[in-house]
Amino acid sequence: MSGMNDLTMANPLFVTFLFYAAILVLKTVLMSLATARHRIGKKIFANPEDAKGLQGKVKLDDPDVERVRRAHLNDLENILPFLIICPLYLATGPNAWMATMLMRGFAATRIIHTFVYLNVVPQPSRGLAFMVGLGITIYMTVQTLLATL
Amino acid sequence: MSGMNDLTMANPLFVTFLFYAAILVLKTVLMSLATARHRIGKKIFANPEDAKGLQGKVKLDDPDVERVRRAHLNDLENILPFLIICPLYLATGPNAWMATMLMRGFAATRIIHTFVYLNVVPQPSRGLAFMVGLGITIYMTVQTLLATL
Amino acid sequence: MSGMNDLTMANPLFVTFLFYAAILVLKTVLMSLATARHRIGKKIFANPEDAKGLQGKVKLDDPDVERVRRAHLNDLENILPFLIICPLYLATGPNAWMATMLMRGFAATRIIHTFVYLNVVPQPSRGLAFMVGLGITIYMTVQTLLATL
Repeated sequence: MSGMNDLTMANPLFVTFLFYAAILVLKTVLMSLATARHRIGKKIFANPEDAKGLQGKVKLDDPDVERVRRAHLNDLENILPFLIICPLYLATGPNAWMATMLMRGFAATRIIHTFVYLNVVPQPSRGLAFMVGLGITIYMTVQTLLATL
Repeated sequence: MSGMNDLTMANPLFVTFLFYAAILVLKTVLMSLATARHRIGKKIFANPEDAKGLQGKVKLDDPDVERVRRAHLNDLENILPFLIICPLYLATGPNAWMATMLMRGFAATRIIHTFVYLNVVPQPSRGLAFMVGLGITIYMTVQTLLATL
Repeated sequence: MSGMNDLTMANPLFVTFLFYAAILVLKTVLMSLATARHRIGKKIFANPEDAKGLQGKVKLDDPDVERVRRAHLNDLENILPFLIICPLYLATGPNAWMATMLMRGFAATRIIHTFVYLNVVPQPSRGLAFMVGLGITIYMTVQTLLATL
């Protein structure tokens, strides 16, 4: 039942983890390009050497850029801990269907979270997406902890 | 002696890693709730759409909120790299007692770090907790590097 | 061909991953000391309790400190996702030479990125280092995703 002892493509639960991990890593790193797009489009930069080449200026409080940066930091705060605890939770041998639903749910809430954040959808949409994702991470963490006792 | 080749609950060192990893992930993600508590309590938010529903205002420099956010960022800077290098260090086959003491020590310093940061305990308490934790991460990293040569 | 199923020092590709992961974790965590060096040298701190003991003052917008902090955050945004996706990509059984070149290339671009950032080397040097590193992460992520389908 220890779903992660076979770290090969022959293990369906490991392949499922690979799939959602790849989706979530891709989503996270693409946030850099969203920031760059706003910076270049509005010609506002964080460093003088960046502003120089593109006839822009240094500005650290543009609302559009800062919104993307907050969404990006929120991903670092939530997606990275999830991607660390999830394989450890899988190693405790959880029910495969339950584990798959949790991974799918987490990936969905984080994609929704970014969409809602960048498009300024009224609350509580972002709060809900955030809390469901955090709840899944906490559930996996507590289950992992309980399995070690 | 390669303590991480058996990624099952039958491997005591792996179970020890799971235990401390779960404690540290839980501690890190709960920082989001500490930030939210301050934001909702003082009705100050980072986004206009958050302020709107709760009759609050946008304010990005509140000292209480920024203190929690600095502690949270410090966790991302220190706990996440530790959780990545620690299993790799374990895979190099270190002495199990030593490895256990290092994991225990790191988890303790990071819990102390957060407590000291949020309760504004005078220095050098936070500096010491930070440096011991960083020292353990650097030690594991150097040991891993040496094992590959 | 599943290069990561043997998580021991007998697996050359796993040892290569350990080597570059250790280099990258070390580079990332040492950024904290670069920030501390500037803070202590200029006697400017983020917390009143830090300023107190060292006869300094609280200042959150010093250009030298903020430059190191931006470089550090850029590491968290790029190196941590790489260190999560890279072992998963290795588990899909890529060509060992190709995988080794990608790890070497990523480590090199991130060391160049930090050097260029902290020494204010004119653009497009930092932009290029950033984009090559991000391109490698995206390539590994897409390959991992394709391997799961």
